[in-house]
Amino acid sequence: MSIIVAAVMQPVGKLQSRRGACLQMLLVCLLPLLWLQPATSSVAADAKAWRQTGPRLQISYSDLTNGSAVVWEGGVNGSYQALLLGEDHGWLLVGGKDHIYLLNPDSVDLPTRTIYWPAAQENVERCKLAGKSLERDCANFVRLLQPFNKTHVYACGTGAFHPQCTYVHLGYNSEEPLFVLSGSDESGRGKCPFSPREPFAVFLTDGELYAGTSVDFMGANAAIFRTSVMGSSQHYIRTEAYDHNWLNEPDFVSSFSIPDTHSPDDDKIYFFFKEKAVEAEQWDRRVYSRVARVCKNDLGGKRSLINRWTTFLKARLVCSVPGPSGVDTHFDELQDIFVLETKDPQNPTIYGVFSTSSSIFHGSAVCVYSMASIRAAFNGPFAHKEGPDYRWVEYKGRVPYPRPGAVRVQSHMNFYCHFMKEFCSCWLDACMVYTYDAFLSFFFIITKVRY
Amino acid sequence: MSIIVAAVMQPVGKLQSRRGACLQMLLVCLLPLLWLQPATSSVAADAKAWRQTGPRLQISYSDLTNGSAVVWEGGVNGSYQALLLGEDHGWLLVGGKDHIYLLNPDSVDLPTRTIYWPAAQENVERCKLAGKSLERDCANFVRLLQPFNKTHVYACGTGAFHPQCTYVHLGYNSEEPLFVLSGSDESGRGKCPFSPREPFAVFLTDGELYAGTSVDFMGANAAIFRTSVMGSSQHYIRTEAYDHNWLNEPDFVSSFSIPDTHSPDDDKIYFFFKEKAVEAEQWDRRVYSRVARVCKNDLGGKRSLINRWTTFLKARLVCSVPGPSGVDTHFDELQDIFVLETKDPQNPTIYGVFSTSSSIFHGSAVCVYSMASIRAAFNGPFAHKEGPDYRWVEYKGRVPYPRPGAVRVQSHMNFYCHFMKEFCSCWLDACMVYTYDAFLSFFFIITKVRY
Repeated sequence: MSIIVAAVMQPVGKLQSRRGACLQMLLVCLLPLLWLQPATSSVAADAKAWRQTGPRLQISYSDLTNGSAVVWEGGVNGSYQALLLGEDHGWLLVGGKDHIYLLNPDSVDLPTRTIYWPAAQENVERCKLAGKSLERDCANFVRLLQPFNKTHVYACGTGAFHPQCTYVHLGYNSEEPLFVLSGSDESGRGKCPFSPREPFAVFLTDGELYAGTSVDFMGANAAIFRTSVMGSSQHYIRTEAYDHNWLNEPDFVSSFSIPDTHSPDDDKIYFFFKEKAVEAEQWDRRVYSRVARVCKNDLGGKRSLINRWTTFLKARLVCSVPGPSGVDTHFDELQDIFVLETKDPQNPTIYGVFSTSSSIFHGSAVCVYSMASIRAAFNGPFAHKEGPDYRWVEYKGRVPYPRPGAVRVQSHMNFYCHFMKEFCSCWLDACMVYTYDAFLSFFFIITKVRY
Repeated sequence: MSIIVAAVMQPVGKLQSRRGACLQMLLVCLLPLLWLQPATSSVAADAKAWRQTGPRLQISYSDLTNGSAVVWEGGVNGSYQALLLGEDHGWLLVGGKDHIYLLNPDSVDLPTRTIYWPAAQENVERCKLAGKSLERDCANFVRLLQPFNKTHVYACGTGAFHPQCTYVHLGYNSEEPLFVLSGSDESGRGKCPFSPREPFAVFLTDGELYAGTSVDFMGANAAIFRTSVMGSSQHYIRTEAYDHNWLNEPDFVSSFSIPDTHSPDDDKIYFFFKEKAVEAEQWDRRVYSRVARVCKNDLGGKRSLINRWTTFLKARLVCSVPGPSGVDTHFDELQDIFVLETKDPQNPTIYGVFSTSSSIFHGSAVCVYSMASIRAAFNGPFAHKEGPDYRWVEYKGRVPYPRPGAVRVQSHMNFYCHFMKEFCSCWLDACMVYTYDAFLSFFFIITKVRY
């Protein structure tokens, strides 16, 4: 549990995680207990007690209220799905249904300041006409709270299946934040999902928002987008639409910016997600976990590649336990990612929480990856599939220099287009690299089985 | 447990099963309890007791000895791996280490008659020189006891890694069977494995022995053989050696003869086994269960197909539970087969006990197949792989008439060879048919997990 909370509660900074799955009240409740309250003797005793009987897999409501946890009940409509902790400023923003709340994380029982931010009435009506539920769908579920600058936070909500974004102005005085919406709403397409339940991942840096989300009512057109949140620029870059070699029904989990070298020009944005595996047998549906990468300095392609990434690569994240007979047990479905910063900002350690895909055997595992192993996968051979009746194999053909996915493409554009379209379907059409190097070490397993 | 015992204890008749895995004393002990003793009130009460607390997964030695089970302790060297019940004649043959025992199944405490049948001394010496254990390997472990005719049983043993076979003469008097070895030993290659621990499957009918076994010291050259046990004929038919599309490190489980029509000329021999899956991804070792079929009237091929089956086909036995997200949980490893006879001899019901391949999640399931579904798989499209970088897909080319695998090949031999070598690698090289039709219904699951 602490890993999930930790991933959600990263303070405003370089590595910022946003959990795609719905975050329930529990996390808000656990926050003081796990992170902000000083450890008391009773907490220590409790912790010792459950350590003795095995890992703690659940916490009851009575355990929670009888302990030293502080329960915040100041919300209006629930559906809390976005949290942003301004550790330096001493505030905690909570995004809920039609509301954004400002809390003091040290004293959540102080009066909560609230901004009412509903969806436009015409969008609510359209949402209802489309057969959606007024209660569960047709409201503005605030799903994105990302630090924009020292005074503003960028916020997006589902806007009754018509995503909307705006800025929250918190002012310069951290003792008494301003807490008002700033400016009018803008479109949230490509930034925030339409549905309050669709998993998504987002990262805002240098005025550009990197988001893994869908851009349609049905949630079928999912992509990794980059959109500008500064000024009125409509320029965007995205993965190809409806091409299952780029993304195949992805469920996004997290995204991060991780520098490659000391030069900010080499920064890469990483997306962690799971998706339907294109490389599995045709009669055997499987879900695989992935890490995808784009260069921050990608300008997008030209000609037929206009508004498309030229540096997109993805690799499978393997989390498995080898068996004595050579048959591995796979934990295929990524549930959460935690990036642990180290002294070297280019080499944080990546912790992934995975679960099994089976409806019979329910197990979880934590796998740990070094950035070296992830980079080795991206620098390794490309995967390649010659045609529909072929299987995915290592690409043995000529790879252009500079290597696709390593740097943005400018002067070699014609050559790259040629490579992508004629020689190396593995790159543009498949965007996949071999991944046997990506697995570093197996950490621990939690198993549960349905009898 | 009763399924395993039932499979082993089929009376002498058309459907005869032989379990490949080692059968321990337990089965001999359970025999009277489960099959031959009339149910007493204490047995019924015991049965009721464990039904109330869930399925019985194990039986302790004290449960066994305190119950109504009869323990037979008349053996000399243990290692009981072959059983043959002559139900009509009132005898039970047990094959052990260097010995064959004759028991009265109604009174196993009566004096046991014993035949000493060791391996030849020079073979024991060679076995020891090859580094094998005198205790565990270099003896004649009797592994095959098959009814040959009304007076004789065909017996094979490992012969200290030099398989040997002979006949047991039981005479005409069922009240007082003769019980002597008849004739000299003959080679057991292609009939019985070299190792006392290698799983194998065998079925003897009309003087011909169908065996799934290896024919080398290392157990690497495994095949499905047909050899004659009458006279001195050395003629045999087998699957191609060291060709992983025919068989890929198989573990044989059972074999049966099942008629296709009223004409004995259409009889087919079925082999059930598991093997390393050639169609799995190259980085993901998997084991699949199979059913293979040959025609009883197969005469073997000509030219390059001399001594090779011309009617061999195999299909995957799928035993899986569908998941809500479309990801199935597979029970890939066949452990045992029980063929339940029905009124229609052409359509027995096939029960398979399967387990998971995982070293973490240990689960078992029973899947039930109708002969109609198995025949539908064999009559369905062929699987086909064009070359090394291709995947297995449905073969869309022209299939010769009569269909390969349906009847023996005689007059169309040239055409067949042409088809096999040039057009349809799916048949001879791969011998595999699509299998999505083979799964009939899911029966029940037993799960166990390693914490």
